[in-house]
Formats: sequence, C-alpha cells, structure tokens
Amino acid sequence: MDEDIRSDRPTCRIDAESFSHYREKLPGVVESILESCDDVECHTHTHIDYEPIPSRESVINIINKLREILFPGYFNNEKLDPVNLRYSMGQSVSVLFDMLSEQVCHSIRHDCFRYNQSCTHCVEKGNEIALSLLESVPAIRKILATDINAAYDGDPAAKSHDEIVFSYPGVFAIMVYRIAHKLFEAEVPLLPRIMTEYAHSITGIDIHPGAEIGESFVIDHGTGVVIGETAEIGNNVRIYQGVTLGALSIPKDAGEQLRGKKRHPTIEDEVIIYAGATILGGDTIIGRRSVIGGNVWITESVPPDTRVLMEPPRLIYK
Amino acid sequence: MDEDIRSDRPTCRIDAESFSHYREKLPGVVESILESCDDVECHTHTHIDYEPIPSRESVINIINKLREILFPGYFNNEKLDPVNLRYSMGQSVSVLFDMLSEQVCHSIRHDCFRYNQSCTHCVEKGNEIALSLLESVPAIRKILATDINAAYDGDPAAKSHDEIVFSYPGVFAIMVYRIAHKLFEAEVPLLPRIMTEYAHSITGIDIHPGAEIGESFVIDHGTGVVIGETAEIGNNVRIYQGVTLGALSIPKDAGEQLRGKKRHPTIEDEVIIYAGATILGGDTIIGRRSVIGGNVWITESVPPDTRVLMEPPRLIYK
Amino acid sequence: MDEDIRSDRPTCRIDAESFSHYREKLPGVVESILESCDDVECHTHTHIDYEPIPSRESVINIINKLREILFPGYFNNEKLDPVNLRYSMGQSVSVLFDMLSEQVCHSIRHDCFRYNQSCTHCVEKGNEIALSLLESVPAIRKILATDINAAYDGDPAAKSHDEIVFSYPGVFAIMVYRIAHKLFEAEVPLLPRIMTEYAHSITGIDIHPGAEIGESFVIDHGTGVVIGETAEIGNNVRIYQGVTLGALSIPKDAGEQLRGKKRHPTIEDEVIIYAGATILGGDTIIGRRSVIGGNVWITESVPPDTRVLMEPPRLIYK
Amino acid sequence: MDEDIRSDRPTCRIDAESFSHYREKLPGVVESILESCDDVECHTHTHIDYEPIPSRESVINIINKLREILFPGYFNNEKLDPVNLRYSMGQSVSVLFDMLSEQVCHSIRHDCFRYNQSCTHCVEKGNEIALSLLESVPAIRKILATDINAAYDGDPAAKSHDEIVFSYPGVFAIMVYRIAHKLFEAEVPLLPRIMTEYAHSITGIDIHPGAEIGESFVIDHGTGVVIGETAEIGNNVRIYQGVTLGALSIPKDAGEQLRGKKRHPTIEDEVIIYAGATILGGDTIIGRRSVIGGNVWITESVPPDTRVLMEPPRLIYK
Amino acid sequence: MDEDIRSDRPTCRIDAESFSHYREKLPGVVESILESCDDVECHTHTHIDYEPIPSRESVINIINKLREILFPGYFNNEKLDPVNLRYSMGQSVSVLFDMLSEQVCHSIRHDCFRYNQSCTHCVEKGNEIALSLLESVPAIRKILATDINAAYDGDPAAKSHDEIVFSYPGVFAIMVYRIAHKLFEAEVPLLPRIMTEYAHSITGIDIHPGAEIGESFVIDHGTGVVIGETAEIGNNVRIYQGVTLGALSIPKDAGEQLRGKKRHPTIEDEVIIYAGATILGGDTIIGRRSVIGGNVWITESVPPDTRVLMEPPRLIYK
Amino acid sequence: MDEDIRSDRPTCRIDAESFSHYREKLPGVVESILESCDDVECHTHTHIDYEPIPSRESVINIINKLREILFPGYFNNEKLDPVNLRYSMGQSVSVLFDMLSEQVCHSIRHDCFRYNQSCTHCVEKGNEIALSLLESVPAIRKILATDINAAYDGDPAAKSHDEIVFSYPGVFAIMVYRIAHKLFEAEVPLLPRIMTEYAHSITGIDIHPGAEIGESFVIDHGTGVVIGETAEIGNNVRIYQGVTLGALSIPKDAGEQLRGKKRHPTIEDEVIIYAGATILGGDTIIGRRSVIGGNVWITESVPPDTRVLMEPPRLIYK
Repeated sequence: MDEDIRSDRPTCRIDAESFSHYREKLPGVVESILESCDDVECHTHTHIDYEPIPSRESVINIINKLREILFPGYFNNEKLDPVNLRYSMGQSVSVLFDMLSEQVCHSIRHDCFRYNQSCTHCVEKGNEIALSLLESVPAIRKILATDINAAYDGDPAAKSHDEIVFSYPGVFAIMVYRIAHKLFEAEVPLLPRIMTEYAHSITGIDIHPGAEIGESFVIDHGTGVVIGETAEIGNNVRIYQGVTLGALSIPKDAGEQLRGKKRHPTIEDEVIIYAGATILGGDTIIGRRSVIGGNVWITESVPPDTRVLMEPPRLIYK
Repeated sequence: MDEDIRSDRPTCRIDAESFSHYREKLPGVVESILESCDDVECHTHTHIDYEPIPSRESVINIINKLREILFPGYFNNEKLDPVNLRYSMGQSVSVLFDMLSEQVCHSIRHDCFRYNQSCTHCVEKGNEIALSLLESVPAIRKILATDINAAYDGDPAAKSHDEIVFSYPGVFAIMVYRIAHKLFEAEVPLLPRIMTEYAHSITGIDIHPGAEIGESFVIDHGTGVVIGETAEIGNNVRIYQGVTLGALSIPKDAGEQLRGKKRHPTIEDEVIIYAGATILGGDTIIGRRSVIGGNVWITESVPPDTRVLMEPPRLIYK
Repeated sequence: MDEDIRSDRPTCRIDAESFSHYREKLPGVVESILESCDDVECHTHTHIDYEPIPSRESVINIINKLREILFPGYFNNEKLDPVNLRYSMGQSVSVLFDMLSEQVCHSIRHDCFRYNQSCTHCVEKGNEIALSLLESVPAIRKILATDINAAYDGDPAAKSHDEIVFSYPGVFAIMVYRIAHKLFEAEVPLLPRIMTEYAHSITGIDIHPGAEIGESFVIDHGTGVVIGETAEIGNNVRIYQGVTLGALSIPKDAGEQLRGKKRHPTIEDEVIIYAGATILGGDTIIGRRSVIGGNVWITESVPPDTRVLMEPPRLIYK
Repeated sequence: MDEDIRSDRPTCRIDAESFSHYREKLPGVVESILESCDDVECHTHTHIDYEPIPSRESVINIINKLREILFPGYFNNEKLDPVNLRYSMGQSVSVLFDMLSEQVCHSIRHDCFRYNQSCTHCVEKGNEIALSLLESVPAIRKILATDINAAYDGDPAAKSHDEIVFSYPGVFAIMVYRIAHKLFEAEVPLLPRIMTEYAHSITGIDIHPGAEIGESFVIDHGTGVVIGETAEIGNNVRIYQGVTLGALSIPKDAGEQLRGKKRHPTIEDEVIIYAGATILGGDTIIGRRSVIGGNVWITESVPPDTRVLMEPPRLIYK
Repeated sequence: MDEDIRSDRPTCRIDAESFSHYREKLPGVVESILESCDDVECHTHTHIDYEPIPSRESVINIINKLREILFPGYFNNEKLDPVNLRYSMGQSVSVLFDMLSEQVCHSIRHDCFRYNQSCTHCVEKGNEIALSLLESVPAIRKILATDINAAYDGDPAAKSHDEIVFSYPGVFAIMVYRIAHKLFEAEVPLLPRIMTEYAHSITGIDIHPGAEIGESFVIDHGTGVVIGETAEIGNNVRIYQGVTLGALSIPKDAGEQLRGKKRHPTIEDEVIIYAGATILGGDTIIGRRSVIGGNVWITESVPPDTRVLMEPPRLIYK
Repeated sequence: MDEDIRSDRPTCRIDAESFSHYREKLPGVVESILESCDDVECHTHTHIDYEPIPSRESVINIINKLREILFPGYFNNEKLDPVNLRYSMGQSVSVLFDMLSEQVCHSIRHDCFRYNQSCTHCVEKGNEIALSLLESVPAIRKILATDINAAYDGDPAAKSHDEIVFSYPGVFAIMVYRIAHKLFEAEVPLLPRIMTEYAHSITGIDIHPGAEIGESFVIDHGTGVVIGETAEIGNNVRIYQGVTLGALSIPKDAGEQLRGKKRHPTIEDEVIIYAGATILGGDTIIGRRSVIGGNVWITESVPPDTRVLMEPPRLIYK
C-alpha cells in the first residue's frame, strides 16, 4: 500500500451540470419503457392489472416453511423442544394455511383472467387446496423417511441421517417435488412449477411436478438430473448426477402438438441409473431391478433384471 | 422423547479460565492474518485501499431491479396497476440510474488503479453508460419477447407464458446475458462477468457476456450449459442441458496467448442442439437449420440442413 | 388493459362461514403432524430436544464471514482501508471465533446424543477447533493465491485476477472445500458437509470435504463436477465442467460395507481433465502430466505423460 | 480488569433436569392465560376474531409516509430531485391510498362488529376517505406553512426554517393533529386518536383530534401541553410547554354524562399563553390578542386585549 | 428550481491526500478512548468483561411481547383468531420464558460480579422468576381490566375501550409498572427500572417499580407524572398530568442516607388528584375519597372526604 | 366468541369497478401535490434539489453509535470483552468518522445553498469537525462520570451506577447535550438541534445545544425541563422535573430582534432547583449554593446561599 503513489493519482469528478445533463434524460427513458408495456408483442411478459398475481417470493417462503414442519427441529429458527413443539407446529400450520390459500387463489384467479374465463370459487378453492396439502403432511413425512433411509443405506460417504437431512440436495429436490406434485394433481396453475424450478436453482436437479415417483427414491449428487413431466418412477429407484429421463427429439412447434401426451420413460422398481445416462421416449420402459450404466443412451425398453452397459469407446493413448 | 434418559446425559461446560485461554489467543491470530494481507503473494485477492471497489451485492440488486422493469408486474414487491405504473417505473429507473452509475464508475476507477493508469472521466462514464443501458430496456424487452415465445412454442410442458417468465431458468440466464452483454460492449470491467456468473450460480447456465446471441433463443432445462466468450449464435436457436460451446484444448499458459482471439464456435439460425452435445473451436460453424444430436462431440464445421447423430455405442445387456 | 372488460369479470369471494369451515380443521391437521413426530419411522428427520442442533443458516454465515477475511476488501459490507483494516479484521476474527465455537460444539454434542455416547469437553473442543481453524487462515490464503494464479494463467477469458476472485465459481467451491477439509480432519461431524453442500448449491461443484487436494487447483465452469470423499488430487491439476472423480458401481447396501474405504481415484500433479470425463475407482491413478480428453470414461490407471482421448463415435450426417 | 479475580468467581449453571422442571410448567401457564381470554371481565382488552382490527404499527407508518409528502425532501429515504420528484410522489400517494383505505376500512368494520351493527360499505368508505385525505394534502401543506413561519418569526433560538421542520416537536404534533382531525371529521373510529397519541408519545404534546385549530399555530417546547376534544383555537395563537386547555372537574361517571358536550375552552385569534397556564371549561373564552401569563389558572372568560398575570406568591428567602 | 443558478454554485471536494490526513489520525483517537476505558474515574460507565450484562434492547422486546399476551389481538403482528390463539399464545409464552430467564439471570449475575459476591443459582433463579412472572399474567390481565374500565367510565373523550387499549399512555405506563413491580418484588436488579424508564420515555409518566398501586387506577394525559419508589396508592384512584407523588427536599448525600426509607406519600382509595398537584413526604396520607385540586402543593396529611383547593392567586388584568 | 352470531354478520365488499373509480383519481391528487411543491408559500418545507440534505435518521444513528463508545459495554449489540475491545472500538470510531463527516458536510453545504453563499471546503470541514468531536470523547466520558456520580449520590432510589447508565433519562439528555454542544461551538448548522430535539422526544428534557453547562450536572425525572439557548449552569447543579430556565415574555417578532442575545438565566455552582420552578431572563443570576423551591417563579437574581420558597397559597378544605 504505497500512500505516496496513491495520493498522486488523478481523481475524476463530474460537475453538477454534467450530472443533471444525464439525469434529466430519465423521464424520456421512463416513457419509452412505458410504451413498451403497451406493446402487444411484449404482453407475454407484462402484467399490469388490479388483480393480484402469484408472488415467487411467497412461494419460496412457503417451501421453506413447509421444510420446517416436514423436518421438525432441523431448519427452525428457534429450538423445538417437547414443550413448545405443539405451539410452534400450530403456528406454522396456521401461517402456512393463510400463505397457501392466498397464493393458490391468486394463481387460479390469474389464470381465469389470462384466458378470460368466468372465475368462480377461487377463494374457496384456495382454502380447500391449502387444507388438503397440509393434511397430506404426515403422509409426505412418511415417504420422505423412505427416501432418507434409502439414501443412507446406499451411500458410504453419508456419516449420519442428520447429514442427509441437513445437506443432501437430492433430499431437498425430492421434498419440493413431493409438495409440488400434490398441487399439480389439484390442477393449481403456476405454483407447482415455480416450486420445482426453485429446487432446480438450488440443487441443479430439475424434476417436473407432473412426474410420478414412488417411495425410497434416491438422487445422488444430482447436478444436471432432468425428470420430465410424464416420467413414471417406481419404488427403490436410485439415480446419479446428469441422468436425463426425457422426451425424444422435439419438433419446432412441439408445444402445441404434444402438450399432455406421455413423452417420458417409465422406470420400474429397484432400478439403478448411473451418472450421465439418458433415457428418452414415452414408450420406453426400464424393467425392474435393471441397472443402467453411466453415460448410456437408451431410446427403447429394457427388460427386467438386465444390466445395460455401454461398450466403452476405444481410448487412444498418446 | 424419554426425559429420564435425557437428564442423565453428562453435560460438559467449559470454565471461564479455559475460555479466556482460547480467546486471548485471538489478537495473535489477527496479527498473522494482517501480515498475510501485506504478503505480496496474496495481493491477487487483497484489496485494502481508500478507493471503493465494485460491490457484488449491489450488482445482484441491480439485476433484480432490472428484472422488475423488464418483466413489469411479475417480480415487483408491490402490485403494478394502471394507476401506479408510471410512478413505480419512474422510481425504479431513477434508482437504477444511481446504482448503475455508481457501480460502473467504481469498476472503471478500480481498473485504472490496478493498472496504474491515469483515470479520467470515470464518474461521467458511469452516468453515460448507466443511461445508455436504461435506454436499451425497450429493445431488450422486445428481444426477450421473442425468447419467451420461442420457449413456449417448443416446450409441451409449458402451461403458459407466465410459467415461463416466473420459473424458466433459461429465460433468467438469457435476460442476464442480454444486460451483461451491453456492459461488455461498453467495455465496463468486472460487472458483466459478475452478472453472468450470478446467473450461472442460480441456473447452472454459464454464458460469457462476450458471446453474440440472436433473437428467439431458447435454453431448455439448462444445467451445465457453457457458452464461451467468442461464441456466435444466430436467430431461432434452441439448446438443451449440458451443451458446451467451447474452445479446443487449452495449453497451460493459454491465458496470455489466446486472450481476445476467436476460440468458440458459430451457430447459425434455426439450429437445434440436444442435451450433452459438445461443439468446440473458433473455426467450427454449424450451418443453418442443422440439428445436433444428444452427446455428439463436434470439432469441425457442419453444413446447413444437416442432422448429426452419434452412432450409438453398442450396449451390452447382461 | 381494457378496463371495461375487466370490471365485468365476476369476482369470487368466500363468505365468513365457509372460511371458518376450513380454518377450524387446522387443529386436527396439527395433531396428525404431531403424531407423525412421535412416529418411530420418521425419527430419521425429527429433532425435538432440549439440546441445540447445528444451524445451517449459521454455517452459511460462517462461510460468508470467512470469505471476507480470506479475500479482504472484496466482499466486506464496508470499505477496508489502511486505517480500519486491523479493527475490521479483529472484529471479524472475534465474531468468527464465537460463531465457530458454538456450531462446532453443537455438532459434537448432537452427535454424542444421537449415539448415546458420554459427551465430554464439547465446549472446550469447540473453542479449540475454532481457534485452530482461524490460525490456519494465513495458510489457506497462501494456497488460495496459487489457485487464483493458476486460474488466471490458464483462462483466456479471464480479464483480471479481480474478475476471478469476484465471480469464478471454481474459486468459491475450492475456498469452501479448503475450510471444510480442516474441520473434516478435526473430525467435526455435520459441519464440513453442510459447508461443501452449500458451495455445491451455489456452484454446481460437489467436492466432498474428505478429498485431499493440492495447490494451484483449477475448476473451470464447474457445473456438474463431483469429487468423492477418498479422491486424492496433486498440485497444478486443472479440471473442467462435468468431471466426475467417483466410485465404481455401488451395491444396494454399499453404505455399511464401504464406509471409510478408499473408493475414489488418485490424480497426480499437473494433470488436465477435460469436460465430462469420468474417472472411477479407488485403485485408479492418473499419472503426472497426463491429459484426459472430454467425455472419456476411465476405470483403470493411466501412466504418467499420457494423453487419453476417446476414439470419437462415428457421426451420422443426414 | 483483573483476570485472576474474575476466573476465580464461582459460576453457576443449571442442570438439564432443573431446566426442564421449569419449562414443563409452561403449558399450564398457557392454559391459564387462555382461560383469561375467555373471561368476560377481560373482554375490554381481548380481541380474538376472524375480522381484522386496525394495526397501530400501520397507522404509525401512515403518519411517517404522510410526513414525507407533507415536507418533501426532508424525511425521504432517498434524495428528491427535480427528476424523480413526480415518480416518488406518485408512488407515495399510491401506497398511502392502499394503506389508508385498509386501515380506515378495518376501523369502521371493527366498530360495527363491536356494537353489532349491520356493517355496510366499509371497503368503499375506506377508499373514499383515503382519497379525500390525500386530496387535502395541498391544503394541509399550506396551513403548515403558516405554522412554520409563525414558529420562525417568534423564536429567537430558531436558526432557520429547516431547523424547525427537522426538529421542532410542536410542528410534528400540529402536523399529526391536522391529519387526524380530517379523519375525526369523517367519523373514522380509533385511527385519529391512535395518531395523536403517537404524536403525544414522541413530543409530550397531547392534542385531541376533535379540537378545532386555526392557522399560524405555534407550540413552543411543548412537553406537557394538553388540548381537549372540544377546545377551539383561532389564528395566530402561540402556546408554551405545560399549557392545559382542559375540562372543569370531572365526576366519576363523567364518561357517559358528558360525552359529546363542549367541555374545553375557546381561544380567539392572536392569543399568547405562557408556560404552565391552565384554562378550563367549555364556556371559558380567551378574547383576541389577550396574553395569559405563566402558571395562571383560569376558569372564566377573559375579554379581548387583556393581559392576565398571576400576582406572584410571596417568595420566602432564608 | 433554477437549474442555471444551481450549476454555477461552486462545489467543494476534498482531495485524497487531505482525506487520508484526517483518517490516519483515527488510530490515535481510538487509543485515547481505550485509555479512558481503563481510567478508574470512568468505571461508573464502562463494562468490559467476559460476563454478559442485561440488554436494554431485549428488555424492551420483552415488554412489547408481554403487551401482546396481556392485550391479545391488539398488538400482534398476525391476526389472532379462535383457531390459532392457543398456538400463538403458546409460542409467545415459550419465547418469553427464554427471554426473561436470560435477562433475569444476566442481571443477577452482573450484580454479583459488581459487588464481588459469590454468585449462586443465577440460572435457576432466572428460570424461577421468569416462570413466576408468566404465571401472574392472568392476574395482571384482571387488574388491567379494572384500570381500563375506570379510564373509560371517567373520560368523556374516550370513544370505546379499544381506543383506550390502543392509544392511552396511562394504560401503557400502568401495564409496564405492573410487570416491573413483580420483578421488583422478586428483587431482580436493573430490569424493573429499565422497564419503567422505557415506559417513561414513551409516555412521560415516571412510575418507580417499587411503588404499591391498587386496582382501577387511572392516569389521564399523564405527561410529567412522577410516582416515587415508596408511594402507596389504593383502589379507584385517578390522577392527571403533571402530578408528583414525591419526596421532601433532599440533601446532597441523600442517596446513602435515605435508600430504602419510606419517603413518598400514601394515597387512599377513591382519591382524585388534578393536574399539576404535588404531594410530598413519606408521612403524608391523603384520606379516602378526598379530591386534590389542580396545582395544589401538599406536604401534610389530608383527612378522608376532604376537597383541597388552592385559593387561587389573584390575577392581574391589564 | 359465538361463531353462529359472527357468521351471520353482513360483510361488505367493494366491486372492482368502484375500486378503480377511486384509484384512478390518484394521478390528479399527485399533480395537485406537485403544484404545491412549486408553491412559493410552501418553500419553507420543500427541499427538491440535486444537493443532499442532512438525514435525521443518520443523526439518530450517530447518537446511538456515540452512546456505545461513551458507555462501552452497556449498549453494544455484541459483548465487549478485553479481547475484542480495541477492534470493536476501532470499528465504531472509523464508522462514526465517516457518518459524522458526511452529515456535517451535508449540513454546511445545505446552509450555503439556502443562503446562496459561495460554499467552500465543506468536505474538508466535515472531516475536520468529525475528527475533533471524536477526539473529545475521552473528555466527554470524564465529565459524564461526574454527572453519573452526582446522580447516584443524590438519589435514594438509585440502586447502582448501572441503573443510572441504563435507564436515567437525565443522563441520556445530558450526554446528547454534551455532544451537540461541541457541534454548536463548531458552528455546524442543523445537526446540534436535531440531536437535542431527539433527546427531547425520548426524555421530555429540552436542552438547547447552545447552553453552557458545568460538570456533575443532575436532572432527576426530567419530564418538562426546558433549558434555553443562552442559559449558563455551573458545577454540581441539580434540577428536577418541570424546571424552566427560560426567556422573559417574548414579543411576536422576537425571532429577528433577539436572535443571539443573552435571554436565559445563569445558575451558579451547587444550586438545587426543585420541580416546576421557573427562572426567567438573561440578567437573572441564581447565586452559588442557593436552593430554589418547587413551583417557584423567579425573574430576578437571587444571592448566594439563599433558600427561596414560595409562600404556599392558602388551601381550602371543604
């Protein structure tokens, strides 16, 4: 840190006149942005209305609050002990009911508005679906227990169940999927996808809320995993990083043609799929107890109890 | 929760003397860290000076604030309606002008200082570049509209344009790239890269701000995508997760040799590149309307209207 | 925004009676969740106790605070200058000592409780290990300097060392690994893994804290990198996105059988491993100065000074 | 700081058993408080209902936000300049409209509920009254200008108008009164009083929102000033700390008997009332241009242009 | 806003050299303040120690949290309804137990340290006293009901009980006194006084926690009320702003001589004391049902059923 | 809580049309407020300019930060112990220097602008005055020690010095005065008064920063105390609540006539002034060791060693 040199450095300041020269152009900028808000082309990503829209931030808060009651004592701000457990849980459930009711209602109402449907009962449906999701918490806890046990049993690097709950990205992604899937089944717009894409951004694991996934499901490491909307996965399945359960090649206007069709594979019970494997197509079925090797590329069904390996490409040693 | 067992557990406390024994060593620790701040070897990651340095946190705030005006009504804390639209937009633009001016100025000044150049006009340049970026907002909105429409048209899992705006990581990564690219063109140091690496950390999509990318660009799923500094991408291009547009193998001292040279491929209009494909080299051109299959590895040019698939390695079924 | 249409839209409200109908079911929901907290099956992810548990949020704060003293002046909220450097550093070290002591103590105590061991000296050990980690800060700074220099020298896209410090995910992941590894060596439970999985969620780079990694280590782009618990990496190694240093195929009950065994490869000095390469097995050694090409799949040792490329699969042009 | 002594001090810790002994009594405490919530006696200060109640915190936020637009540029978080003035003002007005509408609506609805009236139009009335208050902002600004000028002209200690705006408690109390009085006139329950009592807590000046006060009103120092509900004050009046404009002595059950009657004095134009003076009674009129001396106690009218002094009690010098 | 004039104004900037000239003197300033921390003279207001000290901020949080459970539904951040009441109350009680235990413990321990006593059982005493205070909440609620009813019955300006609960400073000051008095009786150091002085700063009403006050107590307006440590007040007493229940004149070294002696008056049931009255001395008793007029100065006892007025000083009309 | 009754209550909702009816009037409201910002009459309380203005919030932060270093260990967020004392103090001083420099500079520059003076050296003066205030901290600590000791010695209700530091409003008001007086002497505009009026709002004690006050000064209870700009107070003076040291009666246009003249009394050493006494006039001197009784009203000098009591007005007993 040579002070002498530093203090010789020329410093540059702007005079007040120049400053206002720039700043006074801002109203023009504002008007041109406002025009762009009226621009029909840009209506895809402009929402100016008296009706509320779901809030991504609130949805993230809901996920984090749900995590507190799905894994009690691990992520709460305050210690949970036998004395305050009921109170804390009760407050969380009460707050979650209100948050969920509001966001479900907003997403239903927003959809009606976009498609100009006559919108009825959105508040009541918000309450009903929020209640129903909360009622399923014990069942979700039970299935998450199978996921966590399976993760522990199969991973020599796991030192304890706590380590898995606290830090495994696979567990977080599966938890979010299991919540979002309930809302997807209840046909709530927007929310399920906002939830799983939040998990995607945290974990690199992209599970579409429409997928059907059984118990004792394990995703190890997980970065780059993609599980498509119509994929079906049985019990006791284990997959590694970079695995894709995807659709076959997709034409330009696939959106309209294929919406709602079965496009992603079915994975039966006790299958293991190693890192980087790609399994594509709605008719592709991987039979029970099969093992799919790393980097394998599959577009046709595999019978049960099969081990599929890639004949490794010849390596060139120079 | 068996209380009787619990209360038998030995508890261990530290006495005050032991505590101060450890704590009193802290000043020594501090001094050794301070010495390390003077250590010439460590000057790569030490910045102790009266001059300010850009703030990563502010740059992230700028991105989030820009997202509010690029997608009005989707990410604002408060509802946007026809009455408060102009006021809200005006305040956002005014605040962004100040935030951008300051960070651009700091990054220019910081650069001058590092390289001991005589620094002039950094405040004025901050204002000028901030204004210019804000003036380009309507144009960025227009090109983002093409990106969103293309994403909707090609993705059967997309339920609505809203779902795409709210949750698609590809849209976020492209938005950040389009902002950062403007600053890259204006030769602002540091900021463009902080911006795209922030998007990288959120989405797993790593687009260098120097890349040139046309309209109607889609990245689906996106985790693991890498688009290098000198890559060029035409209009209506669609790429999937794990696609790399990279450089050929890189010698140890590549930094100095290759800085500024064209090292990454050119992708012409209407190309589709499926998941995991790797395209390398500055002279490699993928011709218009070509389709590159999943996991394909390409280091040479592909003519237009070509479909490149990998002859799949033989699978071994056991 | 056609106001006339909008105001015709039917709005749906819920009457108070219906609202309380739903809300009054919440206590039943709460009780069923509480029952699930007593459920033995779910004890894997339930922690209701008077004893504290480590806090993931605090661990993340510790990482961010440590980053401030490892890279002084880059990530501090307040400017660091020659006048306030000692005070700021002293306060940071003092605060870190308390935060680290507490979290280390909680994780040791929590472990004792889970496994019903007689727990002694956990407070003292918390202080001791916290002090020891802080004492190693200058050494960590020195090795990080080698990492940053190596990143700069090998990357033509890097404009300055500052750009690397501010934005390279590889540098962040390596920094967190180097901290977590110290705690792993000190046999602190839970914390090291929470730390590296936090870095994983930010960067897509998954380094187990148990790995042994030398100096001048570079991870470029990084998304999808996995480095297993018993991997060993020499000096001057450079790896790219999607590289896996993993274990060979893993039986269902691998957790119990293989815990603690060497399962991941050894990478000697000056090796380069290109994107997507997979190297598996505890006996696999990649000899010094070897270069492993992109997407190569290796399960056996490679002698020094070897260049391993995949004979590329034949491409089909249609 | 003698360390040796300190470390000898016995430290006292509680064992886990004792701790749970106390903590396990909390549920009993909770139940007894809940019983007290059902206790009819305590219904005066218990509000457990699905209907919302006004929020004191929101009312305080409203006051502070209104202060920003009544004194533009003095209390804003962000600099107001000619460029952002309209946007900032517009946002403030828009936010205030929502906040005011909600709180007015809640206070009207809450009142209906308490008194079991059939409640109609409370949402609409909330909007109407909020709009009306905001429409009166320019008029309030104008009358506050007279208050500030009068304060400056009469106070040799005032260095500038800015000093008065920034720091004079009298100006803050009068500002709050002028807002609350508008809501009092609109017969909004609860809010006006919450507002003036907030000002009372900040300034020690207790002005009932029902009082009628003219322009160019000055309260100097102000602590202990009380101005009752039915007091009337003309233009250009100046009063000092500790002045009471109150009611005559009040029987035990005065509440019911006197509610709504004129009970507090009338002060005509250009009167000065010095510190500690007490003026009581609904029929008491202080005529124009009169001066009331310090500590004077008045329960009957005073004609115009009169100077009322207390014949000072004889002092005893020992 | 004349821009032309503004931009002509000379602006003054400091050069970097001058800036560092000032800033480099700060370490000297720091050292001189540190010396002052060692200065024996200043030990009255220096607390540098490993032992914690009560936190004024926490004590204020405790008061605000207690207000939420004493007046349920009025000051809670979230709506209280029949469904979440038990949970919310349970959480508040649980949190308050911890906060109170900690602060009571710190204040006892701090006292022991200051006076060098051997400190035992401070943690246990913290728990015990915290529990005991919470157990008295229903009783405090009951007596506050009498205070609120009395305020309503005697104040023609009170529009509803809600208005009183929400905004009357007298009710807040009495509530805080009733809490602090419990802790005073339990001989907790520091905390009771911090509590009542906090109420003093909010309301201008200064009640020493040692005073003994009966039920149905009303303080109207309240600014300037002082109620001394050994004052005793019966039931159904009503006092107005500026009333002092104080000690007779106090010699210089009164602190040591009079600590613990009865120095303040006794007010029997159903007494009314009007604004500004001063009643002094430990032997002074105001008999039941007496009425003390405004500004009266009393140093001797008054028999029951007496009306004491000041013969008003002659007024001089000029 | 009778649910049946509740659910019968009519609920009132507003339809969307009515809502927009009100909301669409807001732009008109905004324009009328903007006009009022241009209104010359209202320039007294309008500050729309590119130049910054002092921030009341920052000044309050400065006071609270200064309190942390004047009373080390009492009001800090984090525990101060012998290890972190220097670091914490250094950081506080460094931060305070910046905060003070900025606010002093803004208040000087703002003044120049208001009065259209050519403004020079305001940044440098900001630094200089900030440094000078911080240099006087040890001296302020020393004189505060005399104030605290005097408070303890004279107050039988004071249980410890800690109680005084933590909770006595007199000590807080005197502390703020001693800081503000330094800035007043340095002729800083606005700030000193914002500071003392902040203390006034917290304590009810209004000390003008221009007053001259000696050591061992005690204000007991304090509410309603007023000490005027040109008052002079010697050493070892003790005053009680409601004491005024004020100016004689003030003509309407006193502001201009009397600005800067000696208008308030002089109190010599060791004087005691009891509650409610009023002492007025610039020529009034209270001689050493005199005692002024409660409620006494004095406009002429009192010789030393005099005891002035009010011959009490005759009381009327009915």
